[in-house]
Amino acid sequence: MTPVDLKQAYRLLNHGPTVLVGSQHAGRTNVMAAAWAMPLDFDTPKIAVVIDKATLTRELVDASGLLSLNVPPVAMKDQVMAAGGMSGKNHTDKLARCEITTQVDPHTGVPLVDGCIAHMACRVLPATAYVAGPHDLILAEVIGAWADERVFSQGRWHFEDAAPELRSLHHVAGGHFYAIGEAVQALPVANA
Amino acid sequence: MTPVDLKQAYRLLNHGPTVLVGSQHAGRTNVMAAAWAMPLDFDTPKIAVVIDKATLTRELVDASGLLSLNVPPVAMKDQVMAAGGMSGKNHTDKLARCEITTQVDPHTGVPLVDGCIAHMACRVLPATAYVAGPHDLILAEVIGAWADERVFSQGRWHFEDAAPELRSLHHVAGGHFYAIGEAVQALPVANA
Repeated sequence: MTPVDLKQAYRLLNHGPTVLVGSQHAGRTNVMAAAWAMPLDFDTPKIAVVIDKATLTRELVDASGLLSLNVPPVAMKDQVMAAGGMSGKNHTDKLARCEITTQVDPHTGVPLVDGCIAHMACRVLPATAYVAGPHDLILAEVIGAWADERVFSQGRWHFEDAAPELRSLHHVAGGHFYAIGEAVQALPVANA
Repeated sequence: MTPVDLKQAYRLLNHGPTVLVGSQHAGRTNVMAAAWAMPLDFDTPKIAVVIDKATLTRELVDASGLLSLNVPPVAMKDQVMAAGGMSGKNHTDKLARCEITTQVDPHTGVPLVDGCIAHMACRVLPATAYVAGPHDLILAEVIGAWADERVFSQGRWHFEDAAPELRSLHHVAGGHFYAIGEAVQALPVANA
């Protein structure tokens, strides 16, 4: 994985992929799937993600103040489905059951999910206090970003040049996903 | 356009499309492009969208308390690019220049963008007061939803059965988009 300039980290999420959320506290690590994540700011880079109060991930994020967003490729579709359909509260061996492994980033202490095409290490922002209760919404600053240079280089995605199983996943409903598709170029704007 | 059950309205955004944001107040209508939008809740249905304080759209949304999120198809790529690159503050004829037209929904009073494959009429939520200042983040309840039944039926997208120019757009950077791609089915989760 290659580090991504933090000012360009928003581009990892700009096209709306489903993500895996990594979290860790007091020796417990969890990973859940989330389709509701987006960039919140360019510089300093921030993200917003919806994490239900009932989840183990939310407990670990609330306790540690840290989380990761990881962009899984098509090759991980079954792990994403399993991570979204199984609770770490019910299964202490959830990650083994889901065949998901993580590595802790030594600089931030945040667990990153193996096999993903991008990672963002994030620290929860103070404004979360106002929206995490009523709306399950977590706001966080991006403090580290990495991407797989087979699909992300020179500050942007290049899925069209790589294997189809490296494309990002976009969840529709109930285990139905779309892979990201064909490149489309718009005309430049005159007299903006 | 066919009405969508409000409990399934989140599915219009679940796969992460770039949207057009419609707004109107005191006789002025505007449309801007936004890649940073996501569902916030199922029931009651809510959305979150980032709208910069410097925009005309933000003025109109703040004044009216209303906005629409519209999902443009590939066929509208140049209008999306123009709506994202031109400010309604600098051009009172922005919509004509962008070749964008709108229709006001008679029930909610919200302008919906013609040619889009889905629309959500939304009312700004009180919690926005805490996050719109520091983070340009608007939280809103979905009060009306519609989709083009050529691509959305029985509560989900069916892009694989329709023309390529009806696929949703996902912005990467600088006028580069991806269309949503191939359907991918994950295995069901055992022992969840």
